[in-house]
Amino acid sequence: MSEQRRLEHILRKMTLDEKIAQLQQLAAPFYDEAGDDGQITGPMESLGITAETVTNAGSVLGVAGAEKVISVQRTHMANNRHGIPLLFMADIVHGFKTIFPIPLAMGCSWDLELAERSAEIAAKEAAVSGLHVTFAPMADLVRDPRWGRVMESTGEDPYLNALFARAMVRGFQGTDLKNDTGRVASCVKHFAAYGLAEGGREYNTVDLSERQLREYYLPAYKAALDEGAEMVMTSFNTVEGIPASGNVKLMRDLLRGEWGFDGVVISDWAAIGELIAHGVAEDDREAALKAIHAGVDIDMMTSAYVLELARLVSDGLVDESLIDEAVLRILRLKEKLGLFENPLRGADPEAEREVVYCKEHLEAAKELAVKSCVLLKNEGALPLRQGQRIALIGPFVQSGDILGNWSWTGSRETAVRLGTAMEALGGSGLVVAEGCGIHDITELQLEEALNAAGEADVIVLALGEASEMSGEAASRTNIKLPDAQLKLVQSMKRLGKPMVAVLFNGRPLDLHGIYEEADAVLEAWFPGSAGGAAIADLLYGVANPSGRLTMSFPTTVGQIPVYYNHFNTGRPKPAEDTEEKYVSHYLDSPNAPLFPFGYGLSYSSFSYGELALSSASLKAGQTLQAKVRVSNDGSMAGTETVQLYIRDVSGEVVRPVKELKDFRQVMLAPGESAEVAFEITEAQLRYHHSDLSFTSDAGKFELHVGGNSRDTLQSVFRLEQ
Amino acid sequence: MSEQRRLEHILRKMTLDEKIAQLQQLAAPFYDEAGDDGQITGPMESLGITAETVTNAGSVLGVAGAEKVISVQRTHMANNRHGIPLLFMADIVHGFKTIFPIPLAMGCSWDLELAERSAEIAAKEAAVSGLHVTFAPMADLVRDPRWGRVMESTGEDPYLNALFARAMVRGFQGTDLKNDTGRVASCVKHFAAYGLAEGGREYNTVDLSERQLREYYLPAYKAALDEGAEMVMTSFNTVEGIPASGNVKLMRDLLRGEWGFDGVVISDWAAIGELIAHGVAEDDREAALKAIHAGVDIDMMTSAYVLELARLVSDGLVDESLIDEAVLRILRLKEKLGLFENPLRGADPEAEREVVYCKEHLEAAKELAVKSCVLLKNEGALPLRQGQRIALIGPFVQSGDILGNWSWTGSRETAVRLGTAMEALGGSGLVVAEGCGIHDITELQLEEALNAAGEADVIVLALGEASEMSGEAASRTNIKLPDAQLKLVQSMKRLGKPMVAVLFNGRPLDLHGIYEEADAVLEAWFPGSAGGAAIADLLYGVANPSGRLTMSFPTTVGQIPVYYNHFNTGRPKPAEDTEEKYVSHYLDSPNAPLFPFGYGLSYSSFSYGELALSSASLKAGQTLQAKVRVSNDGSMAGTETVQLYIRDVSGEVVRPVKELKDFRQVMLAPGESAEVAFEITEAQLRYHHSDLSFTSDAGKFELHVGGNSRDTLQSVFRLEQ
Repeated sequence: MSEQRRLEHILRKMTLDEKIAQLQQLAAPFYDEAGDDGQITGPMESLGITAETVTNAGSVLGVAGAEKVISVQRTHMANNRHGIPLLFMADIVHGFKTIFPIPLAMGCSWDLELAERSAEIAAKEAAVSGLHVTFAPMADLVRDPRWGRVMESTGEDPYLNALFARAMVRGFQGTDLKNDTGRVASCVKHFAAYGLAEGGREYNTVDLSERQLREYYLPAYKAALDEGAEMVMTSFNTVEGIPASGNVKLMRDLLRGEWGFDGVVISDWAAIGELIAHGVAEDDREAALKAIHAGVDIDMMTSAYVLELARLVSDGLVDESLIDEAVLRILRLKEKLGLFENPLRGADPEAEREVVYCKEHLEAAKELAVKSCVLLKNEGALPLRQGQRIALIGPFVQSGDILGNWSWTGSRETAVRLGTAMEALGGSGLVVAEGCGIHDITELQLEEALNAAGEADVIVLALGEASEMSGEAASRTNIKLPDAQLKLVQSMKRLGKPMVAVLFNGRPLDLHGIYEEADAVLEAWFPGSAGGAAIADLLYGVANPSGRLTMSFPTTVGQIPVYYNHFNTGRPKPAEDTEEKYVSHYLDSPNAPLFPFGYGLSYSSFSYGELALSSASLKAGQTLQAKVRVSNDGSMAGTETVQLYIRDVSGEVVRPVKELKDFRQVMLAPGESAEVAFEITEAQLRYHHSDLSFTSDAGKFELHVGGNSRDTLQSVFRLEQ
Repeated sequence: MSEQRRLEHILRKMTLDEKIAQLQQLAAPFYDEAGDDGQITGPMESLGITAETVTNAGSVLGVAGAEKVISVQRTHMANNRHGIPLLFMADIVHGFKTIFPIPLAMGCSWDLELAERSAEIAAKEAAVSGLHVTFAPMADLVRDPRWGRVMESTGEDPYLNALFARAMVRGFQGTDLKNDTGRVASCVKHFAAYGLAEGGREYNTVDLSERQLREYYLPAYKAALDEGAEMVMTSFNTVEGIPASGNVKLMRDLLRGEWGFDGVVISDWAAIGELIAHGVAEDDREAALKAIHAGVDIDMMTSAYVLELARLVSDGLVDESLIDEAVLRILRLKEKLGLFENPLRGADPEAEREVVYCKEHLEAAKELAVKSCVLLKNEGALPLRQGQRIALIGPFVQSGDILGNWSWTGSRETAVRLGTAMEALGGSGLVVAEGCGIHDITELQLEEALNAAGEADVIVLALGEASEMSGEAASRTNIKLPDAQLKLVQSMKRLGKPMVAVLFNGRPLDLHGIYEEADAVLEAWFPGSAGGAAIADLLYGVANPSGRLTMSFPTTVGQIPVYYNHFNTGRPKPAEDTEEKYVSHYLDSPNAPLFPFGYGLSYSSFSYGELALSSASLKAGQTLQAKVRVSNDGSMAGTETVQLYIRDVSGEVVRPVKELKDFRQVMLAPGESAEVAFEITEAQLRYHHSDLSFTSDAGKFELHVGGNSRDTLQSVFRLEQ
């Protein structure tokens, strides 16, 4: 009997109620006897779930740990008359116990191999702890740093996000989920355009044209699916006026129809029930009706499906075949994971103790942290020199709150703190002080900080946002650091000593009050379990900063959204210092961000030779080559990320002023140079036209190459028909 | 011969070049011999226009004054071989010489009759000065106070904007443009959705779904056209990726096709040429090609049409019939205005001296200013009492810069200043001081202010934005008053005296630094020629404030956009002081604006009785009545604006939490009460569904009645099929 027929055979034996229970996902508290509870998000309500539904439920959220999972699964298998195992899912976003830098930081590494490796390690730790599915990667394009969940995205570029989404899916899933029990299935989220929440306010309305949706917001989800991601999670927001979890056009027509996705679609936490609050359903019954028609298979944490679907079927409003197909998709995923043969799959308490948080994993986490930090400013204060007396001051000096949001299984206690790592490297020259808390500063703290700094040659400030200031439901209207910390900066500045700011945060910040004051600024994001060690290496020059921003840092919150791949407008500002009035500008702020996409400094100094094109024109089927020689003129080996941008000068619709099309990372020894070559083809010039066709237009193109999206060498070519 | 046939006869005699010249609009400088120049906006370039084109040009922009217009028109008629008169157009936005409050202020009056009267007066003054067309009303919906041009809109509500657009068109055009030469043709602008410029940055990209466009942004333009507006101006922005001036779907299919608009479409200043900068045209030739195909008849201030159209016709890319229809539309407008019979139309130097800026007009301007001011806070400091010693301090005390942007023909010199008007009413008890400039404060100014205030019983601060800080190309990222003025407020606050702030500004402001400090805040906007007199009446209680905001005042710029008719989201914040984390909110700011749409205080105190519905259900064809008794419990006669809002609890797409559907203004003597009744019909419950159909859905509706959009009485009813 083929697998498909075996699953259909099971399906035929299931009652309607059993089928519907299979669509239910319950969270850890429903399995409390198994021990501690997982992370709970969203409005938790009394669901009215019966014991029978629990016995027949299809999946569980947030239960982890090999022993616990084994216990829950064994109980479940003993009670489930069809022998259908539970699927164990969780948010393994940037590591399981070994926490890697947050995704926004990982994006700044531009290192796809390491990203894949981080996902592979996360999968390995999660799988051995009994998990089967992770709700990752998040492939949401983000342009608004007020939104707390930008920390979970790799940034503002659709092309780069797509590459990272693919890398993460490869890392999580591997190539054989059934036999490679150290992998987990990947659920790409949040479909679609969650990142465009109005005003950067969590869960807020999204509105955009379908063309903009397809051109910028969908590619990274699509890339994850092309890479084989087994699941899709709906987003909380509306798309064209209809919440994703009840959006037939988005979920049924586009995702299932046009893209042919046949995997499992799961609602985000309680999102089916929330169709009522959104105002597209009067009650659970209508919510369930809309969600099942939209093709949402799993109801995460509402009871709309289990309480209403049966009656909707008997009333003739839902065809049972809709439920059958949803059940079959879930069974198929269980089959793909090998759960029918091996319900415990990778769960293994002994291996768990060996694998989880092992030295090798921590080293990988440190490597990614080193590559994720972005040096934003350096007027000679870095790297620190051995023998310097250093005052290390600030709320993040000895804080374990460096894992960032979405690290529920990680341990802050064992995270490598900056102070500890600096001491190990810098030795006796280090004096530390707290200086202030995240939000408060006392006279005593300030006095201690001044005392510590008074003795020092260099002041290093470790500042930032608490991790709960970004992530889900953590939007801010003010994206500066809290006043207490800015006051600490001011006080330290008065000492007139070289000052370095190290920043721990989950979003691009408005750096007024820090940027001008500090001589060097290192953006460390939330660097994860090995964060302190990575930063210490960078500060002392043991490692050379190579991270590049994948999300613009606005000059001020009033300028949001600001992103590099914007349109030109009909009246572009000719220069930031123009005197012209009737151009697209602000009276009181530049148009440009403080730091653009792609930006980041190094202890090395890179220079670019001439940009040479192999031809002034390109035809479909042909290849154009762009070459440039890049040299390391500095005295330290370093990595340059050479970026290729293209601009379609005249399109059928307006086109961005620059679009990232490719990049190369080159490691160069002092004095070394390398030729970097890019191949350009017609396929890279395609875009969504007003009729939504994805084609290219003949005409003029600008080609830009450089170390960031602002400072580029430029050439032009024409695409010939 | 019918008029149409006469125009076609002229058309047949015109050469192609003459036809194309008819599509050209030139600005005042091209007619310099006639005297002073009009207002010039946008990039003025060397256009390469020949003398022959000038002779055959169809219209002129910004030339005004009866003698000048007569001179230009006579010269033109003497040179034009077909006897086709010039059309004289200008931006007569909120008055010609008698300047009325800016449109955003006018909106706050909720007084449609007075709005119509203001347009009638503006038309009368403009017509007698030789103008034929005004580029007004602006019907752009606005939600982002960073955008400087919000001052030119009546606000954030599509229904109210539509009513005002209609009132303005009626006032400008009257009912018989040919015989009523005291009227002018109205050009509604900017088609479409200019108000949604991204980041509130002037001329910036617009993106939204077609449904959102039709539901919120188009209704006010449509209303103006239904009222008979003769012209439409294109907007600078993109709509679905294509700039309006080259957007076939928007201009040709929707405006001309679906709506059947057969009047003249004009580009905004240089907008055809700007198709190149937008990146949808490589050169003028392609720009002209796209604009003529989109159905743009008049090219304002680029030479794309005159330089390129003839060749496009001879190359077979443009059918001459496209040009013929554009010319015919322009000729038809000239015919409608009676210009063929009477090329000088209303232009009359003698009447001009009598009519323009006459007493009657100034009185109307004052009346509208009184009704436009909004009392935002009053803890007993207002009204001022006779005999009080008042220190009137601030940069707007003796400023004539109270007309606001788009008042190019107005005179700041003769505007009634606040200080002058206060002196006239308050007499000897008034001491004045400048206190500070708009952006700067000196020690001397501060000292003089402290001296003035030291003697006083009450401090009245006249603060605000210079008029050039709003209007076109005047976007701000910081929407507070400049620091110098906030410093003045702080210094005055320390005196511990009752303090009143009167604000002159063109946008909703972040009032931190003013609102908490002042005991009373009167939002005066830019009140126009009689502004000082109107404000003095309000401050002294000669008049009673009755204005209500038509645009929300955000709590902070980081919260933008904030508007009353938003959607609920799936996780609405249950209350501003909720402890719940996983709801749609900001960590550091309320969701709500500081002052909501519809808000405004009075010296009277109004109370509402019970809200009674005539039925719990409504059917199509029937009428539901909602009644409430409103009482004036205060000691001064006053006007209450009773507002009716409806919420569709569950729609096919998400629906706003409240939508204004009707309102009544009731004037009540002290102790008087009145029953206010609203009729609700099924037609008011229609909206654009996902298939763009405009229909209603059976189901539950909330009905709200109150004095602003936040504080309402509530009832429910059901719409039955």
